[in-house]
Amino acid sequence: MKNTLAQYKQQVEAALEALPMEGAPEPLRSAMRYSLLSGGKRLRGCLLLAACDMAGGNVADALPFACALEMIHAYSLIHDDLPAMDNDTVRRGKPTNHVVYGEAVAILAGDGLLTHAVEVMAASCHPMAFRALGEIVGAAGVRGMLAGQTLDVTLEGTRPDVETVQRIHKGKTAALLTAPLTAGLILGGAGEKEIQAGREYGYHLGMAFQIVDDLLDLEGDPALMGKTLGKDLEEGKITWPAAVGIEQARKDAAWHVDQAVKALDCFEKKAEFLQALAVSTLNRVQ
Amino acid sequence: MKNTLAQYKQQVEAALEALPMEGAPEPLRSAMRYSLLSGGKRLRGCLLLAACDMAGGNVADALPFACALEMIHAYSLIHDDLPAMDNDTVRRGKPTNHVVYGEAVAILAGDGLLTHAVEVMAASCHPMAFRALGEIVGAAGVRGMLAGQTLDVTLEGTRPDVETVQRIHKGKTAALLTAPLTAGLILGGAGEKEIQAGREYGYHLGMAFQIVDDLLDLEGDPALMGKTLGKDLEEGKITWPAAVGIEQARKDAAWHVDQAVKALDCFEKKAEFLQALAVSTLNRVQ
Repeated sequence: MKNTLAQYKQQVEAALEALPMEGAPEPLRSAMRYSLLSGGKRLRGCLLLAACDMAGGNVADALPFACALEMIHAYSLIHDDLPAMDNDTVRRGKPTNHVVYGEAVAILAGDGLLTHAVEVMAASCHPMAFRALGEIVGAAGVRGMLAGQTLDVTLEGTRPDVETVQRIHKGKTAALLTAPLTAGLILGGAGEKEIQAGREYGYHLGMAFQIVDDLLDLEGDPALMGKTLGKDLEEGKITWPAAVGIEQARKDAAWHVDQAVKALDCFEKKAEFLQALAVSTLNRVQ
Repeated sequence: MKNTLAQYKQQVEAALEALPMEGAPEPLRSAMRYSLLSGGKRLRGCLLLAACDMAGGNVADALPFACALEMIHAYSLIHDDLPAMDNDTVRRGKPTNHVVYGEAVAILAGDGLLTHAVEVMAASCHPMAFRALGEIVGAAGVRGMLAGQTLDVTLEGTRPDVETVQRIHKGKTAALLTAPLTAGLILGGAGEKEIQAGREYGYHLGMAFQIVDDLLDLEGDPALMGKTLGKDLEEGKITWPAAVGIEQARKDAAWHVDQAVKALDCFEKKAEFLQALAVSTLNRVQ
């Protein structure tokens, strides 16, 4: 599994490096590239390529969409880190965008990455480009990621019920891990039933991923995580362990991974990589 | 001309009111609607409908794209007004978005309007939807509107040369007045030569519009403008009159209007409305 993941990641990295941002004036271009090319797992991009592959599609044709997902993810982190939002100064061991470029340019860099993500998808000649674009933008939108962000920001410091925490994590994290599956399958030529299976996998993977993320903030290695730990608890952030306790959170993460694995059974042998990836979520250290 | 404009405006207003934002949680939905439905000329939406009409297209089918342009315009104003950007507290006679909803929600409301604009276009079944979407998003992107915003923010307080001022206004204003023309013509079924004519009209209309805007800030009626005047000069904003002088700015506005009118001559009688609209730019008071 690790080899395949590394190959997908390399393709996404190369495509991101090669993105045509020449027309963007400085310091906008540098600010956009600073956050976009600052490392990270490229999980969203890799998931999209893997889903396209699983459906028997051409991975190279899906690359603009993998890049778009990574740009949308990078934009959400830039805006999330702003002083008016989470006020984070370090991410992946480096100063956050607004610390380096100032708040005004950081806001524009986020806007720029979101807009450029759509531009790159709109330039694709893939016959399913329009539908895949709709899936990805919908996941990033006011019923998806932005819904989660809004609830997260406005409810911070409160103790919402478990259903609300679930709604936040579904929007904040699972939406942008579901879109790579559905869009990748659409680009790969999958049928509606398969797309629906991918949607379920993405949701459960996303929930597991967020729970493990919350657990790592409590129990992880600060050197590997590249950020200050224990911050969530200190700042009254809404997390799964805070809502249900650490032991139950561990069980829930395992359950979601199990559901994710089962969702892809219809793909038989072809699902091996994505199923192994889901299982590996439980053991990640960063 | 005024009757036709009022009819287009009414169609745009009704479509904006009816936008499906139900899934957006509070206060995101209210914050998005606050800025989107706070009046304004709806110039971008009306231009798109007029261009579609001029090409003989169905105006009703073009409405989602008119709404998208107005959402993109509203998002740009919300982010532009933020404390880290222009720090404006009043717009159209009302407190700006962040004054009412706070900075965090205002940032998300801007992000939400941009994303929703793309969602609404991506939901269209129009055969030319994908290309029209590309035109509009390209105009809003890092080579268009965001290029202008970036130069404007980073050069504020300096006295850039005339070419740079032109580049700023082309990006900041003309890009989002050109896209309604090209996208509207595309949706209306126009040919490449006609689309190019529309592109020229949009550019010159945009430049004239921005110059008149700068002049109104110096000489307009504060009650009609719904904002404090003279602020541009006081804050060292980059304006056309500051670059070339008031008299020359008036001449340049008239020249751009003339060029805009000429650009549409190939449409003969059908261009009457858009040509009259360009001429009226010179006499606007708000």
